[in-house]
Amino acid sequence: MIQKRFQPPKLVNEEDSYLEYFYDKAGSVPGTLSLETDAEAPPIVLIDYNESKATCVQLETALTCAYCLGKESVSWVDVQGLGNQETWQQLAQVFNLHPVVLEDVVNVPQRPKVEVYEEHILIIAQMLMPKEKAAGFYCEQVSFILGEHYLLTVQEEPEYDCFEPVRDRIRTNKGNVRKHKVDYLAYALLDAIIDGFFPVLESYGEKIAALEDEVVTKPNRQTLEKIYQAKRELLALRRAIWPQRNAINVLIRDGGNLISNEVKIYLRSCYDHSVQILDIVETYREITSSLMDVYLSSISNKMNEIMKFLTVISSIFIPLTFIAGVYGMNFNTDKSPLNMPELNWYWGYPACLGVMFAIASALVYTFWRRGWFENFYNIKND
Amino acid sequence: MIQKRFQPPKLVNEEDSYLEYFYDKAGSVPGTLSLETDAEAPPIVLIDYNESKATCVQLETALTCAYCLGKESVSWVDVQGLGNQETWQQLAQVFNLHPVVLEDVVNVPQRPKVEVYEEHILIIAQMLMPKEKAAGFYCEQVSFILGEHYLLTVQEEPEYDCFEPVRDRIRTNKGNVRKHKVDYLAYALLDAIIDGFFPVLESYGEKIAALEDEVVTKPNRQTLEKIYQAKRELLALRRAIWPQRNAINVLIRDGGNLISNEVKIYLRSCYDHSVQILDIVETYREITSSLMDVYLSSISNKMNEIMKFLTVISSIFIPLTFIAGVYGMNFNTDKSPLNMPELNWYWGYPACLGVMFAIASALVYTFWRRGWFENFYNIKND
Amino acid sequence: MIQKRFQPPKLVNEEDSYLEYFYDKAGSVPGTLSLETDAEAPPIVLIDYNESKATCVQLETALTCAYCLGKESVSWVDVQGLGNQETWQQLAQVFNLHPVVLEDVVNVPQRPKVEVYEEHILIIAQMLMPKEKAAGFYCEQVSFILGEHYLLTVQEEPEYDCFEPVRDRIRTNKGNVRKHKVDYLAYALLDAIIDGFFPVLESYGEKIAALEDEVVTKPNRQTLEKIYQAKRELLALRRAIWPQRNAINVLIRDGGNLISNEVKIYLRSCYDHSVQILDIVETYREITSSLMDVYLSSISNKMNEIMKFLTVISSIFIPLTFIAGVYGMNFNTDKSPLNMPELNWYWGYPACLGVMFAIASALVYTFWRRGWFENFYNIKND
Amino acid sequence: MIQKRFQPPKLVNEEDSYLEYFYDKAGSVPGTLSLETDAEAPPIVLIDYNESKATCVQLETALTCAYCLGKESVSWVDVQGLGNQETWQQLAQVFNLHPVVLEDVVNVPQRPKVEVYEEHILIIAQMLMPKEKAAGFYCEQVSFILGEHYLLTVQEEPEYDCFEPVRDRIRTNKGNVRKHKVDYLAYALLDAIIDGFFPVLESYGEKIAALEDEVVTKPNRQTLEKIYQAKRELLALRRAIWPQRNAINVLIRDGGNLISNEVKIYLRSCYDHSVQILDIVETYREITSSLMDVYLSSISNKMNEIMKFLTVISSIFIPLTFIAGVYGMNFNTDKSPLNMPELNWYWGYPACLGVMFAIASALVYTFWRRGWFENFYNIKND
Amino acid sequence: MIQKRFQPPKLVNEEDSYLEYFYDKAGSVPGTLSLETDAEAPPIVLIDYNESKATCVQLETALTCAYCLGKESVSWVDVQGLGNQETWQQLAQVFNLHPVVLEDVVNVPQRPKVEVYEEHILIIAQMLMPKEKAAGFYCEQVSFILGEHYLLTVQEEPEYDCFEPVRDRIRTNKGNVRKHKVDYLAYALLDAIIDGFFPVLESYGEKIAALEDEVVTKPNRQTLEKIYQAKRELLALRRAIWPQRNAINVLIRDGGNLISNEVKIYLRSCYDHSVQILDIVETYREITSSLMDVYLSSISNKMNEIMKFLTVISSIFIPLTFIAGVYGMNFNTDKSPLNMPELNWYWGYPACLGVMFAIASALVYTFWRRGWFENFYNIKND
Repeated sequence: MIQKRFQPPKLVNEEDSYLEYFYDKAGSVPGTLSLETDAEAPPIVLIDYNESKATCVQLETALTCAYCLGKESVSWVDVQGLGNQETWQQLAQVFNLHPVVLEDVVNVPQRPKVEVYEEHILIIAQMLMPKEKAAGFYCEQVSFILGEHYLLTVQEEPEYDCFEPVRDRIRTNKGNVRKHKVDYLAYALLDAIIDGFFPVLESYGEKIAALEDEVVTKPNRQTLEKIYQAKRELLALRRAIWPQRNAINVLIRDGGNLISNEVKIYLRSCYDHSVQILDIVETYREITSSLMDVYLSSISNKMNEIMKFLTVISSIFIPLTFIAGVYGMNFNTDKSPLNMPELNWYWGYPACLGVMFAIASALVYTFWRRGWFENFYNIKND
Repeated sequence: MIQKRFQPPKLVNEEDSYLEYFYDKAGSVPGTLSLETDAEAPPIVLIDYNESKATCVQLETALTCAYCLGKESVSWVDVQGLGNQETWQQLAQVFNLHPVVLEDVVNVPQRPKVEVYEEHILIIAQMLMPKEKAAGFYCEQVSFILGEHYLLTVQEEPEYDCFEPVRDRIRTNKGNVRKHKVDYLAYALLDAIIDGFFPVLESYGEKIAALEDEVVTKPNRQTLEKIYQAKRELLALRRAIWPQRNAINVLIRDGGNLISNEVKIYLRSCYDHSVQILDIVETYREITSSLMDVYLSSISNKMNEIMKFLTVISSIFIPLTFIAGVYGMNFNTDKSPLNMPELNWYWGYPACLGVMFAIASALVYTFWRRGWFENFYNIKND
Repeated sequence: MIQKRFQPPKLVNEEDSYLEYFYDKAGSVPGTLSLETDAEAPPIVLIDYNESKATCVQLETALTCAYCLGKESVSWVDVQGLGNQETWQQLAQVFNLHPVVLEDVVNVPQRPKVEVYEEHILIIAQMLMPKEKAAGFYCEQVSFILGEHYLLTVQEEPEYDCFEPVRDRIRTNKGNVRKHKVDYLAYALLDAIIDGFFPVLESYGEKIAALEDEVVTKPNRQTLEKIYQAKRELLALRRAIWPQRNAINVLIRDGGNLISNEVKIYLRSCYDHSVQILDIVETYREITSSLMDVYLSSISNKMNEIMKFLTVISSIFIPLTFIAGVYGMNFNTDKSPLNMPELNWYWGYPACLGVMFAIASALVYTFWRRGWFENFYNIKND
Repeated sequence: MIQKRFQPPKLVNEEDSYLEYFYDKAGSVPGTLSLETDAEAPPIVLIDYNESKATCVQLETALTCAYCLGKESVSWVDVQGLGNQETWQQLAQVFNLHPVVLEDVVNVPQRPKVEVYEEHILIIAQMLMPKEKAAGFYCEQVSFILGEHYLLTVQEEPEYDCFEPVRDRIRTNKGNVRKHKVDYLAYALLDAIIDGFFPVLESYGEKIAALEDEVVTKPNRQTLEKIYQAKRELLALRRAIWPQRNAINVLIRDGGNLISNEVKIYLRSCYDHSVQILDIVETYREITSSLMDVYLSSISNKMNEIMKFLTVISSIFIPLTFIAGVYGMNFNTDKSPLNMPELNWYWGYPACLGVMFAIASALVYTFWRRGWFENFYNIKND
Repeated sequence: MIQKRFQPPKLVNEEDSYLEYFYDKAGSVPGTLSLETDAEAPPIVLIDYNESKATCVQLETALTCAYCLGKESVSWVDVQGLGNQETWQQLAQVFNLHPVVLEDVVNVPQRPKVEVYEEHILIIAQMLMPKEKAAGFYCEQVSFILGEHYLLTVQEEPEYDCFEPVRDRIRTNKGNVRKHKVDYLAYALLDAIIDGFFPVLESYGEKIAALEDEVVTKPNRQTLEKIYQAKRELLALRRAIWPQRNAINVLIRDGGNLISNEVKIYLRSCYDHSVQILDIVETYREITSSLMDVYLSSISNKMNEIMKFLTVISSIFIPLTFIAGVYGMNFNTDKSPLNMPELNWYWGYPACLGVMFAIASALVYTFWRRGWFENFYNIKND
């Protein structure tokens, strides 16, 4: 194939993939799908329900979907993986998909957006998965194609999604998802995706709290790298949520008659959540920027302490060493009574030591008055 | 329950809770309320008044509210606490509340907003309570549901609110609150909430003034932490007031016929106050940013003074020590008249001391000319 | 009274009052006026004119204004001070003022704004007074209530205003103020207020020029404080002019039929001036921000010079002192011909001094080649 | 000719030409073309196709184009180079071009834009060519004049373009370019240009990743220059893509009936790509800004390590040297029993060495406790 | 007169006048002109042309213009200087100018703008003149009053304008200026003014390139001042071009029937140029900001090098000096065999020197391993 993915820079761990965008080779045919030729057909799960009953079945081929299009019940076709060329030919045929739609769905990742077509609405969203141990996250594209009675969802990776609770609610008829139409199902899934951002944010909250602690108590080289990395990842997070917020807004405003007024009320609350997420991300970004400044100040503070230590030691001993040096001179006391008569005094040596002690005391007192020693204790306590 | 609160990072004191947002577990049923199952029913206080009389009664159950809905008099139902599931089933039934509204009211905290429904308007606001001793504040969500003749308010915490003066004005018929409809009551409460921001701001004003003083006279490690914390809390404050301002604007613009033109005039003045608050918050944020820069400069200045001190001491004594070292050498004066003849001179030692004194004086003069000593006195005076 | 003023932080001089905003105690009755109970009634001056004649009279009580409302001539009622409760009851009665208007006019300071009511327009403006000696300014609220044939102005302080030239033009019939209606008078006064910003800006221009000079030639601790203070005051200045600009724009756009098209042309030029002021304030703010950076760089530069000095002195004398130390060792030359034979050489001492001189010269040459000494001369010339 | 190009500053390599803009000499006749008088006529290639067949021919003179204007088939006239005055007289005549259009097409570079004229649409775009070895790019203007059945493209440089895949698709009837009208051709070429930005971005991604590595592990003088240069080039990149994005938006919104709805769907996807590019460029710019801060912190960190080293060495040896100096004094032990009796003690020398060792050990222990030595190992490992 | 000019701060050369704005004394009569009472009448040049012929004549008095108002031919009245009160009385009378217009034209400098009046359009523009030797520019206001058949232009200074090429094109009938109406003339002059910004920008481009070179190779105190000054002048430049761009946009949008559609096409290209200029100015401003950061880093880098040098010298010689000091002690070797027996060893002195050499070598090797010496060579090469 002629396409490849755009790879952004990576600082720390190689698996960070949330900054990349898909891009075509310049001049390629629009609608060219970037699929591995030998990929297997993805699992396609059909959940069909109305208020009274719900069935869940894994389809053999994509063509099988066709039969459910004419029905009044809600059909959720969940394509779990990007699959191969054949799958998409069949899906395009069944759901009457435009090549541009196909491209957006398959050539992941795309920017989150909502595009309203005549027969259906295309929704591109980014689903976040928190990493198990470290702060950070994986990011997976989920595409929705919302028709009058059907919802086609396409997931980039089959291993993980956050839709299980929704499936559960359909299966057990919990909540009122089965009382509503397919637009409510689309809302429920979108809401699950948006709510999935919060745990990721929470992990960053904890990371930033740890960094705040570190930057104040014992800033070191790694602190800086961690702050920088957090800043960079929050940048990526903002890039994921910002267009998603706009997309939901477009859905509310321009959804046409595929989105009922009832569901728009629910979408508004979903929109509110995305605004909250953006709020928190922006706040965290400002905090990390301030942390960088605090770090720089801490480094300067540390330097000050080091210099104070050097200055105290040097200032005390350099004058004393000079005095010792003077009385180490070899002027001949025999040739002249003016030549270092102190050396022959009875109290010469004690007086000399006394002068040294007095000078040292005066300097120590001066430094103590300026409060330089307090800081030494502070450092020790770190 | 499946929900939990989103916890942001905390620098200093553990009780700061104003950065958190409520979030659902991804995929949970919309309208799921995050309540403690064993919570008691909250106190529900009904204040019912018209121009001629006012009654205040604590209701036994939420269902009792129903009787006041048909009346022309103004009914203010004040739910003081989030209560339990049962309370909300009853309230939802009496006031015909949408699940999404319930969720916004109960799953605190939410972002301040105004949403206009057919029968009522939902207003979410954040009420600030200044901390007693330190700068800082607690934050509590207050929700308003404003109908034609009733106002339902829900407070997150029962212990504190800033509505007492309004209750007093109703009780004593002071001002003209009893001459107006329920929309005026909603305004009066909102206004009380907005005015409650000012004392908090004032405490930050004092804190910043203290920091300005500290950063200039004796900047230390704690100063930096304090500036950073103030910046962070002002960020949180802005996040509380910014959407509140927009919410009031929405209320004025889209309030429909539940808000009379007369009350809109009052709301405009309330809007003005929220703009003023935002103004002050932004100004304070810019000031704290500048303070960070001033702090950094102060640290550099201090370093300069330390280095000057070290340089003065070193520059004066190192050359002198060298001279003393020279005359401490053991070249044999007996072997050659060229070997350190100074040692045997009559004026050798005084001359040597004289040279040392001359060098020291020249250096001191040089430093004095450059104005280095002035700064020493400045430091001492700190 | 229950109200108090909001006090922002103050760095330098206690009289800076331009950052404060008035705020109500939370929950107080709207329309509560913050007046000293024992204040005297303020002087109220009525200037009544048409094209042919103009009279100026100080009114005994506010009620006296009533007689001029029915007349066709222009009546300018100038209330010079905030006065007491009684004055405002009378004025509210005569001019039919809404409690919210009263609050805005009396509870100073408010944010500049224009509010259009049915019978009149409320204009809140901030009048600047440059300080006599230092850069800086006082700020006073002036409120306009513009009716069909009357203009009510309320000044916060009676001592000073910038309206004297306008009064003079009315008195002497200079310019065409007496040929126009009352809307032109309102323009003329607003224009006087806006033009009053320029001298204040000019004083900041001079201050910044002085700071630029200082930061480059001899930056010190006070320089930083001055830059910081200028930045802070410009922030306050922007807060005064920004809403004023918007207010004038609202007046042009929404003034209704109380503002004639002829006067709108004049107001446009007044708007242009406020934009110019904002322009200059923004430019000054950017310049002070840059100055802060320049200051930091200057400090670093100074540190470099200090360190260079220390390094030069240390680097030259430390090696020499080492050599002197070597020949000060007491190895016994009698025990072994290998023990410091130099001490007994004929040319030992001169050779030793020669080596020292050579080393010192080489080091000095190295430093000179790197251009370190040039900077020393630069410092001296400061 | 009276025109010349505007040359921006250049840091590193002389061929960077992407910051320049063309400008006229003030007062020159509009429509004056900046062409070399002795330039040859550029190659003009006509590709004419409909669904059934496609021909490609190099035209002798521009006038020859005229014959294809009346035909229904799609005619793509590709002018490969800016050519000379005569060419443009002919083209202006054939395609009825306004002098302002001519100026925009010929006087390169212009800012990307779309201008809709009566008979045709002018599209100015910037085509990027990645440099072979280094990060960086060349930039070439491509102008489109899109009529009802024809597309005139003008390339600044004949050597390179990214249109070859499109030509190939026309030739081999791959994709559906030959099934569409001329507006689809314009889209296909624009899309090729937009997709050509991605490889350039990718090279910057790699460059930034390398810089991140460098700034953390071994920051040096060149690192700073590289960061600065990357920042500067990204600034240029943003200037190229920002107006291009707007231009495509104008095309979608105001394209009139020259752009069919079908093609607008494709252009929307093209617009999405340009937004993605802008996104990435902005992210990279923020990252480089942060890198600058990280660099500064790294430098400070390094300084800290250097100072620690100096302080450790000085603090240990200066006191010891002082003690050695004391016992190097020449007080006459014969004259007084108080004069340095230690010198004559049996254990004098070992005791002295022991004291020195104890002091050194205490100091080393102190430094070790503060963790200073850990950092030394870190540096070594760099 | 009562007016004076507003003077902004000036860093370097006293003639910088591009930051000033004219301001009235507060309360002065609108329409008061700030003219020197004893100024002579300015030269007024009338160029009258139609397609067939063009005449150019210097008018005796402004009143003479009146005769050309009724004619169909294009009359360009060029007032070269601000002149005196009498001139403006005559011009106001002939062209029916509003006092506010007069004020904008005469009380220079004003902010660039376009104001549409009933009979004419007022255009205020700033014309730039590059300084001969240094980067920098003079700035002169040119006002246009565009009527149906006439164009009145007023220049602040008579000495210089950039209109000569336009006059030439009218005289020699080059281009098509004489084929168009007066609106085209206004465009041609505006275009000349806009194009006059480019040479100024170019000089800044060169200045910035020189600064980039300087900041990297040998940053010094003057570099900082130069960067700061460039930043400040670019700020002024932006303030000149930003409103000019908006003014041209207003002209295109609201020009009414005084601007033909044909000329609007030309004005669009003029607008594009002003956007390009703004683009470049913004880019230059961001570059100078980055340069400031680079400068600061360079200073820190230099400091690092200085400290490394000091550390290397000190670290090597301080331990050696200590050893020399030890063997310079006077412990009595006669009293005890433990007292400095080394002094009497046969290989004592060589062994001592050997130890010193070994220590020095080890330290030099350590520093070399850390790569400290490489940087020394770099500095020398500066």
